[in-house]
Amino acid sequence: MAEFPETTHVSDASHTSVADLDIGHVDALQDAIKNQDGAAIRTLLADEHPAELADRFEQLSADDREALVELAPDVISPFLLAELEDEVVEDVLPLLQPGQITKAMEELDSDDAIQIFEELPAERRAEVLADMSEQDRKEIEDGFAFDEETAGRLMQREFVAAPEFWSVQQTIDHMRSQSKKSDDNLPDKFFDIYVIDAHFHPLGYLPLSTLMRSDPDRVLGDIMDTNLTVIKPELDQEDVAYLFEKYDLISAPVVDTDGRLSGMITVDDIVEIIQDEHTEDMLALAGVNEAGLVDTVTSTVTARAPWLFVNLLTAIAASFVISLFQSEIEKLVALAVLMPIVASMGGNTGTQALTVAIRALATRDLTPANTNRVIRREAFAAIVNGLIFAVVLGVITFVWFKSIDLALVIAAALVFNLFCAGLAGILVPLGLKKIGADPAVASTVFVTTVTDVVGFFAFLGLAAMFLL
Amino acid sequence: MAEFPETTHVSDASHTSVADLDIGHVDALQDAIKNQDGAAIRTLLADEHPAELADRFEQLSADDREALVELAPDVISPFLLAELEDEVVEDVLPLLQPGQITKAMEELDSDDAIQIFEELPAERRAEVLADMSEQDRKEIEDGFAFDEETAGRLMQREFVAAPEFWSVQQTIDHMRSQSKKSDDNLPDKFFDIYVIDAHFHPLGYLPLSTLMRSDPDRVLGDIMDTNLTVIKPELDQEDVAYLFEKYDLISAPVVDTDGRLSGMITVDDIVEIIQDEHTEDMLALAGVNEAGLVDTVTSTVTARAPWLFVNLLTAIAASFVISLFQSEIEKLVALAVLMPIVASMGGNTGTQALTVAIRALATRDLTPANTNRVIRREAFAAIVNGLIFAVVLGVITFVWFKSIDLALVIAAALVFNLFCAGLAGILVPLGLKKIGADPAVASTVFVTTVTDVVGFFAFLGLAAMFLL
Repeated sequence: MAEFPETTHVSDASHTSVADLDIGHVDALQDAIKNQDGAAIRTLLADEHPAELADRFEQLSADDREALVELAPDVISPFLLAELEDEVVEDVLPLLQPGQITKAMEELDSDDAIQIFEELPAERRAEVLADMSEQDRKEIEDGFAFDEETAGRLMQREFVAAPEFWSVQQTIDHMRSQSKKSDDNLPDKFFDIYVIDAHFHPLGYLPLSTLMRSDPDRVLGDIMDTNLTVIKPELDQEDVAYLFEKYDLISAPVVDTDGRLSGMITVDDIVEIIQDEHTEDMLALAGVNEAGLVDTVTSTVTARAPWLFVNLLTAIAASFVISLFQSEIEKLVALAVLMPIVASMGGNTGTQALTVAIRALATRDLTPANTNRVIRREAFAAIVNGLIFAVVLGVITFVWFKSIDLALVIAAALVFNLFCAGLAGILVPLGLKKIGADPAVASTVFVTTVTDVVGFFAFLGLAAMFLL
Repeated sequence: MAEFPETTHVSDASHTSVADLDIGHVDALQDAIKNQDGAAIRTLLADEHPAELADRFEQLSADDREALVELAPDVISPFLLAELEDEVVEDVLPLLQPGQITKAMEELDSDDAIQIFEELPAERRAEVLADMSEQDRKEIEDGFAFDEETAGRLMQREFVAAPEFWSVQQTIDHMRSQSKKSDDNLPDKFFDIYVIDAHFHPLGYLPLSTLMRSDPDRVLGDIMDTNLTVIKPELDQEDVAYLFEKYDLISAPVVDTDGRLSGMITVDDIVEIIQDEHTEDMLALAGVNEAGLVDTVTSTVTARAPWLFVNLLTAIAASFVISLFQSEIEKLVALAVLMPIVASMGGNTGTQALTVAIRALATRDLTPANTNRVIRREAFAAIVNGLIFAVVLGVITFVWFKSIDLALVIAAALVFNLFCAGLAGILVPLGLKKIGADPAVASTVFVTTVTDVVGFFAFLGLAAMFLL
């Protein structure tokens, strides 16, 4: 590290800080749009980092975004398109000329180009492809041939590979000469060099930092790290992300079916995937089909109504259980007053267990090796909590309704419901996972159905048997 | 990129695949532990990647882990300690000799060393520090002086900086000569070189890939990227992660109060933080205080009981609302049968709105610029869903109980409760955020209290007014 005399001079360089969203700027932007002032829009957005631009653009309402694109279509640069969220790209692309889309896709690395291509309406894809150079078109078509959300879709076809017998100096010289060519095929950024054999099969990798500190005459094969994580193109992106996290990867090579190096995935895409998968999990748990604040009222309603409908059915099932005990409730109306407590405590216990399980499945901390232990732990913990709150609720019930029998019945029902809730909370996601379903998607409904039905049935049933 | 003749040779190299957890291995490990066979443990774990080792180790029960450390303490390498989850490190450290801990901390980059130090019981910290070299101790103490979960804690003190007037070749030569020194102060891995002025203030950065492709006589100041994101040590780690995501950073420099370069944060730590923050949000929403499958029954109970207690209080509040209408329920027991449906649909609507809001706050898609639009959207969407399900539930109620009045009452109550639920779902997290609280932590309880109380009150109150 270079050493300089230390001084107490205070830097006045303007550092990017996290107070990043200059809201005044969006207000000014909205005004410029309202005034149909394309020049003002360009001035406001000049020299912005594409990530900043994307943030501002996403803050606008759908109408304002449309107006902005019409007034100043040139603001939509290739790098801005690469930064925008998918749903926003989907809205923006129809507003652009085919030529602008083609140009953007040619300028970007192939992974970003494919992400844009994905958002094009099917009928416009041929048109955009027809304009592209032979090589770029082939890259898009090849990438698009892989399933959505797989490594093949995700990878970029630009990477750096070198044979094992090359020296450090040869490798550096090669990159320098490559970057002087007009059709420079080097990725915009890269972090590792993949060392390959004569058949283009990866043998190891060399972080650039290792290349940097190695003697110029060292041979790559001698200094490479052979502990290489190679990714198959059909691998699900969630699994790719898991490998990156587990092995602290910055980039990883993708091979074709013959084991030849065919692409590269970098960590910046992984960060995005982790965020997307997390949004997916949270929304699935809450019963929202898709999300994003770019949504309109219509899409919000359609994203949420289906699960509300399912919830209505399960709520009616719970009501049906209550209806079996109408005569008991007529005789002892305290039952109606207290019954939601048993159901609610069960629902809460179930949700707790469920969320911990979903998260543990997502981070792969819950595996066949510890499943039985975790199930036992959940069951025990639910019983212990059941006993604790049975005492509390029993005492409250006794004080409120002056009936020791009612207190005993609600205490017993609570222990039983919490036990079922804890078990359902762990078994439902495990079961869904086992049959190949996404455990986050339907778990909540199953578990709360169990806790409502069991809660009402246990409390009202015990009351019918012992109180009346 | 090196070009080779393509062949159809199929690679038989064993690639790391995602089918990663060799459960047989854990079984064998458990057997070796049961047999108190340290040699077998060492054989089973020899040559494993620290990340694999960490996974296996975490699969074991707490007792088995303790036994393993006693039988083969040398298995706990510095790099394994760096890979383990915090809670596991906390359990393992007391089983190790102080010398082993000191050695591990000296061997690791300072960010990893501090993470281990954090998990040491306070009374053992001095002892471990005393054994360390002057420089390493100072690094730990300096890092530890920053608050938890800040950039200062997170950063490593090893980084590469070079003055702006150095040439590419000089820089490479400098790194090569550095790495030959016995006290090589270069980071294990690095991705960017920070370009500094004579006062050690960062001026820009140079990705290694840029350095690689630049002519050897180019001067750093000419080829550096001045669009540098500089991080202050007091910045919250969540904000640091946000900056990494937004600008697709691989590393970022941290400066001290005088603006001088003092550390570096790398993206692999960020991936971990993003995962941790996700876990935190999800568990907070579900009312679980802390998590991890390494937990025992006791810690599971203590992590969940507090929120169950809060839930009990809110459930009792809802019951109190019901108790105000006991005479109405006695007269028309159908009210008791139907009332949970209104509350449940409200709870679900509230949870949906809440989760979308929490997620949008976490990803910074919900900002002052679009808050009003989002609130309006949530309110409208809730009313639309309210009207849809009011019709459905009204018809069902009419068919079930043959009362048009009861159907109208439940329909009206449902629309009103869903409207309140949608509003509470967005306003509660925004309000918590405004007063500086974590919106994920208490939102669920507030929102479900609203939906329960409003649901029961609206339905039973309307019934009291119009039916009886």
